[in-house]
Amino acid sequence: MEICVRLGRNVRRLREAQGWSQEDYADRAGIHRTYVSDIERGRRNPTITVVEKLAVPFAVPAGDLLA
Amino acid sequence: MEICVRLGRNVRRLREAQGWSQEDYADRAGIHRTYVSDIERGRRNPTITVVEKLAVPFAVPAGDLLA
Repeated sequence: MEICVRLGRNVRRLREAQGWSQEDYADRAGIHRTYVSDIERGRRNPTITVVEKLAVPFAVPAGDLLA
Repeated sequence: MEICVRLGRNVRRLREAQGWSQEDYADRAGIHRTYVSDIERGRRNPTITVVEKLAVPFAVPAGDLLA
């Protein structure tokens, strides 16, 4: 599966496991909600510094989001 | 340590473990040699599709390069 799609599925799975809305999560990550929506749909190819921001609310290593 | 610096150190460590020059490795990854040099010095903030290209020659998951 393409890496942007894997990232999106991992973000959605972890976000939903926390019971957070996209807006809740976006606020925690310091990223705009529409960007989170695009990420979850595999429609963004973010830089690694963005992946690190995405990982912070989940307290997981950034690399885990690409698995 | 900053994620771009971690990426660079991982790439250099794995490349040297294979005994490849930056040029050897750049050819295998399909990336320009000067870009590899910048990556290894932590001076680039690549997208995740580039991280996937960087991982291919090492046959490791892309996320491992961010560890």
